[in-house]
Amino acid sequence: MMRFGTALTVTVTGSSHGPSVGAVVEGIPAGTPIRVEEVQQALDRRSPVGRSLATKRQEPDRLVVQSGIRDGKATGDAIVALVENQDVRRGPYEELVDVPRPGHADFPARMRWGSARDLSGGGIFSGRMTIGLVIAGALVQGLLEPKGIDTVAFTRSIGPVDVADAALDLPLQELRRISRGNEVGAPEDTAAERMRGAIEEARRNGDSLGGVIEARVEGLPPGVGEPFFDSVESVLSHAYFSIPAVKGVEFGAGFRAARMRGSEHNDPFVLKEGVVRTRSNHSGGILGGLTTGMPVVARLAVKPTSSIAQEQDSVSLSRKEPVRLMVKGRHDPCIVPRAVPVVENFTAFVVADLLTRGRFL
Amino acid sequence: MMRFGTALTVTVTGSSHGPSVGAVVEGIPAGTPIRVEEVQQALDRRSPVGRSLATKRQEPDRLVVQSGIRDGKATGDAIVALVENQDVRRGPYEELVDVPRPGHADFPARMRWGSARDLSGGGIFSGRMTIGLVIAGALVQGLLEPKGIDTVAFTRSIGPVDVADAALDLPLQELRRISRGNEVGAPEDTAAERMRGAIEEARRNGDSLGGVIEARVEGLPPGVGEPFFDSVESVLSHAYFSIPAVKGVEFGAGFRAARMRGSEHNDPFVLKEGVVRTRSNHSGGILGGLTTGMPVVARLAVKPTSSIAQEQDSVSLSRKEPVRLMVKGRHDPCIVPRAVPVVENFTAFVVADLLTRGRFL
Amino acid sequence: MMRFGTALTVTVTGSSHGPSVGAVVEGIPAGTPIRVEEVQQALDRRSPVGRSLATKRQEPDRLVVQSGIRDGKATGDAIVALVENQDVRRGPYEELVDVPRPGHADFPARMRWGSARDLSGGGIFSGRMTIGLVIAGALVQGLLEPKGIDTVAFTRSIGPVDVADAALDLPLQELRRISRGNEVGAPEDTAAERMRGAIEEARRNGDSLGGVIEARVEGLPPGVGEPFFDSVESVLSHAYFSIPAVKGVEFGAGFRAARMRGSEHNDPFVLKEGVVRTRSNHSGGILGGLTTGMPVVARLAVKPTSSIAQEQDSVSLSRKEPVRLMVKGRHDPCIVPRAVPVVENFTAFVVADLLTRGRFL
Amino acid sequence: MMRFGTALTVTVTGSSHGPSVGAVVEGIPAGTPIRVEEVQQALDRRSPVGRSLATKRQEPDRLVVQSGIRDGKATGDAIVALVENQDVRRGPYEELVDVPRPGHADFPARMRWGSARDLSGGGIFSGRMTIGLVIAGALVQGLLEPKGIDTVAFTRSIGPVDVADAALDLPLQELRRISRGNEVGAPEDTAAERMRGAIEEARRNGDSLGGVIEARVEGLPPGVGEPFFDSVESVLSHAYFSIPAVKGVEFGAGFRAARMRGSEHNDPFVLKEGVVRTRSNHSGGILGGLTTGMPVVARLAVKPTSSIAQEQDSVSLSRKEPVRLMVKGRHDPCIVPRAVPVVENFTAFVVADLLTRGRFL
Repeated sequence: MMRFGTALTVTVTGSSHGPSVGAVVEGIPAGTPIRVEEVQQALDRRSPVGRSLATKRQEPDRLVVQSGIRDGKATGDAIVALVENQDVRRGPYEELVDVPRPGHADFPARMRWGSARDLSGGGIFSGRMTIGLVIAGALVQGLLEPKGIDTVAFTRSIGPVDVADAALDLPLQELRRISRGNEVGAPEDTAAERMRGAIEEARRNGDSLGGVIEARVEGLPPGVGEPFFDSVESVLSHAYFSIPAVKGVEFGAGFRAARMRGSEHNDPFVLKEGVVRTRSNHSGGILGGLTTGMPVVARLAVKPTSSIAQEQDSVSLSRKEPVRLMVKGRHDPCIVPRAVPVVENFTAFVVADLLTRGRFL
Repeated sequence: MMRFGTALTVTVTGSSHGPSVGAVVEGIPAGTPIRVEEVQQALDRRSPVGRSLATKRQEPDRLVVQSGIRDGKATGDAIVALVENQDVRRGPYEELVDVPRPGHADFPARMRWGSARDLSGGGIFSGRMTIGLVIAGALVQGLLEPKGIDTVAFTRSIGPVDVADAALDLPLQELRRISRGNEVGAPEDTAAERMRGAIEEARRNGDSLGGVIEARVEGLPPGVGEPFFDSVESVLSHAYFSIPAVKGVEFGAGFRAARMRGSEHNDPFVLKEGVVRTRSNHSGGILGGLTTGMPVVARLAVKPTSSIAQEQDSVSLSRKEPVRLMVKGRHDPCIVPRAVPVVENFTAFVVADLLTRGRFL
Repeated sequence: MMRFGTALTVTVTGSSHGPSVGAVVEGIPAGTPIRVEEVQQALDRRSPVGRSLATKRQEPDRLVVQSGIRDGKATGDAIVALVENQDVRRGPYEELVDVPRPGHADFPARMRWGSARDLSGGGIFSGRMTIGLVIAGALVQGLLEPKGIDTVAFTRSIGPVDVADAALDLPLQELRRISRGNEVGAPEDTAAERMRGAIEEARRNGDSLGGVIEARVEGLPPGVGEPFFDSVESVLSHAYFSIPAVKGVEFGAGFRAARMRGSEHNDPFVLKEGVVRTRSNHSGGILGGLTTGMPVVARLAVKPTSSIAQEQDSVSLSRKEPVRLMVKGRHDPCIVPRAVPVVENFTAFVVADLLTRGRFL
Repeated sequence: MMRFGTALTVTVTGSSHGPSVGAVVEGIPAGTPIRVEEVQQALDRRSPVGRSLATKRQEPDRLVVQSGIRDGKATGDAIVALVENQDVRRGPYEELVDVPRPGHADFPARMRWGSARDLSGGGIFSGRMTIGLVIAGALVQGLLEPKGIDTVAFTRSIGPVDVADAALDLPLQELRRISRGNEVGAPEDTAAERMRGAIEEARRNGDSLGGVIEARVEGLPPGVGEPFFDSVESVLSHAYFSIPAVKGVEFGAGFRAARMRGSEHNDPFVLKEGVVRTRSNHSGGILGGLTTGMPVVARLAVKPTSSIAQEQDSVSLSRKEPVRLMVKGRHDPCIVPRAVPVVENFTAFVVADLLTRGRFL
């Protein structure tokens, strides 16, 4: 099963080199407004088309809705939506069956399924599967907007380049506007330019970079999240680690919290215009797994792209001997910028699911 | 529902100041050997009894099995196991209903459930609920041992004090032996002594400390994990963020990976005695969400204990006015040492669930 | 997993000859009123104690609540409730391991689990497991009563003896009052007396009888039920076929509907005091899987008790040869009367689950 | 959620008057052989095209597979398969919004969703949704065939006409061959001809008929089924009551068992060529909810088609007044023949799910 969610669920469908990739989304109430063109725009932001830093596999991802939406509204039935795979070149991947690529799922997938599962183009491990996550998140915007709930994701760092602290204090709308205005998805143009340079340098060296993405959700009421096992942190991290290449997730002060004292870390409660808020937000808007009403803040560590244009050590599984491997194919030297809309949209999906479960919607 | 797992499930039961806390564990096959005394030993390692650094709430946690085990074996039915709450003092907590404690779940829980849910002693947000996690993990050891699968957790850092890098290269058995030999759960006695000093100093100052816990699993075959949404990382992080005070989770190089180059981060495949291994283990034993056969390595950031013996800013929810709050009650100045056995056992439970789902068991 | 339900779940725990049998019930909202003494009364109605027609295994089923209820209200946590097994005699059952009893689960259970699963006293196939169903249903009454939803079950027939048609038109309260007033659970005393005679005759002959139980639910709003797979009929029948010995389930006209014409079967819509009702109720209060607001009516066929005091043909599984088997042990010659409170309570549980899922509660 | 199953799941998608209807099927292992042309043939058997007794809505149901099958094998990913709706005429249904049709879901659906859910053509309550069930069952044949498991369904009765008892003793292959050879799906040509006459007479009178369908599964090993709540009977009946118009389900002797004595109903165990069988099969191949290795036998009561060409009493929901309603549209005077392939295929799906859960596959 490749399915996620409880009150709302998404099943990602297809695979990299099959006829299509997409999503089946269930649980959106009949009558929920859905603007299909905005789902398309979300897909366009994930698309490599027109990005100078991205993979050369360039195909417009045209959304096709098979069922579940009519006259701009959810019918209440399963929404089946997909994007056809066009630019499929089977050649480059087929030789990888015997010699697994370092950093890729090739080896464990082969151990699990033998040759029963087609992994050309990465198969279900391809970043292309995240199209389903973008669709799922874009479909639930009609549930969140009327409640004033807004989600943003942006690039915090790429390789050694960090966004300046000052930029992090911008209002959510500004963070989104600036991040969407540059190719790396950073909320600060100077850093964005340096990140771009770092990626280009990595590419020239046949190498790759990782980075950190930050997600924020504003407008959530206090008390969202399910007690104990389905805390906001548990459910969001479960979702985030589904995104290929994510190797760390933290909330609020996160790993920094481990070095703080309680007197420093605790966020004091204060009243702001009659509303209970906290002065700082080290908790990332989550206490006891439930939202506090402060912005939810998460950060995701993204590893550098595994496919690099350098010879690497691997082994032949059949011949049981070492092999020097040169990975071919078309790859992003840094997937962080394209992962930003995935994180933003999938965060929205998780939040909508938690709100529905908790009957806030 | 306070339930976790798929092929194996655990429901945590009871609450801090109710008659008992415990677990209902389902899915363990009939005939699986279960040594009840080892479950008790696991609980004893979590217990504050005899720990100089721990809360003064000191009660022996005596395991009672209501059903599901007979003659040292699982019957195949639900295992109902619990520990009675003995040392319950209701006084200190009752005044907190109106003035939420900074860093605690009081505020969002009150917003969610009003007064319908009893939160004295932390209720379901109490660290005492982790007794159910320890029980669950200890119960599945009879599934893991015959396969040679071994799990350990230990303290990596407390406040500013880190374990020396050299200690991290010790074999798993040694890591466990040394960690169990000192009160802070660290695999290095010198660091353990400094950690102990740091905790005592924090306590003297009416303050608290956090830290980092590392978990490792050895002996897993390659290919464990479910594709896409139920990757090993997704499921483990979901579990880990259920443990109160955890604010970050990373695997392998984790957040460091975000600053590495692909050529540096990729783990080259090599043959060791005919078995495919990786030279380094930056992936933390997980590629594409599936195990590689290398040790699974996870780290958890634990925030400093929220209850500190200092006046803090809060608000009266009824009177809508600021209040200076002094938290009373009995608390650990650092919960990291007692969280170590929770992480170790719950890791084992998650691994057993994934192995069962994937039919490795 | 021995668990049922969606928004509310019940896990039946224990087994016939283990230390206890009971239920873990999850999902009842914090604050729901629960009268433990009424749960006990429901158990008493299922109990053989004081029934002249029942098994000689006679033990008072004393309810023990381990967690989840406090001060007459649900805490919102899992409710762990059980009854200790007292009158356990292991002897009679142990010889059945090799020679399966006709009509019992012995044979397929042995094929499935070998000797890993303890089936003495019927194990999990014992009618005693239905204690968990009674508990589950009795616990949710505090959700149904404030909505005016009332559930009843009664005996429609035992062996060849049917309740007179006139009795079926009685109001629900009367059906319940009369049925609880005689030992066979029938809503008509004349029939009840004849049923009693039939059971006694069967017992004298070392034989057993089956019968039909009818369940009714009144007060449900129209529209309850989940579309397509989780229709009211689907979910109720799923529940009913869990009750040992049930071999048929029908709603409204049921199997009679198969011989009716549409013009006869369709229930015309009419207005009664401004409310939409149907003139007849051939649909059993369910159209398209959703409630119509008319009484929900279900009937369950219960087979005759399998354990009879006559020699029967069986085989020795080890020796692969025919055996004449005389079943020993203590058995009801007709379990219909004791199944009535099980059906009544478990119907209430299913209805409460559907109402919660559909947000009618 | 319109989803069913555990180890294998099916989500039915689309609706009667949307662009398509179909199924998303998950859990079929990578490499399972799937003959798409046989799925098409199963759909053709459900289709009204070429049936003189069926609805005049006549459209060829052309299967389109969007993902999950490649080169005649399951890829292991979700199978998205659908059939486009071609012959959609919106007119006849739109006036029904205010005046519910007797025997239809119109009224409760309107109470549940108001006008948010489009019910033209029956919407999700249309018999057309069973296309998804046929697809699901046809897709799993590649799991059952290698194990020698065979499923058949046939018409037992239509209106007052029953199949002769002798026909019921035919081998499964013969039952299938004869049933597929006549338009009503009966395993006896004489009865088939009389059934055909009864249906034509009902149609001439503007009326409709119901009937009984029997399903059989042969080749199942003993022990299939999950203990207590997910017995074979529970899961099959859950599935069967999803099929529109089913109002009763029984196994083996079913409702007849309620009038039998234990000495008569119990199936004696015997050895046949070294294999344990039962002499009779009153249990319908199921004891304690588990298969015995004997044929599984189920019967479903199907009510007469609700849409009849006669004026009926209904009410105007808006004006709160009685209305005489004449239902227009295109309808089958008896849906039993077309429900037969639905029952046959969906039985296969349920069986494959239970086998997978129990690790028989």
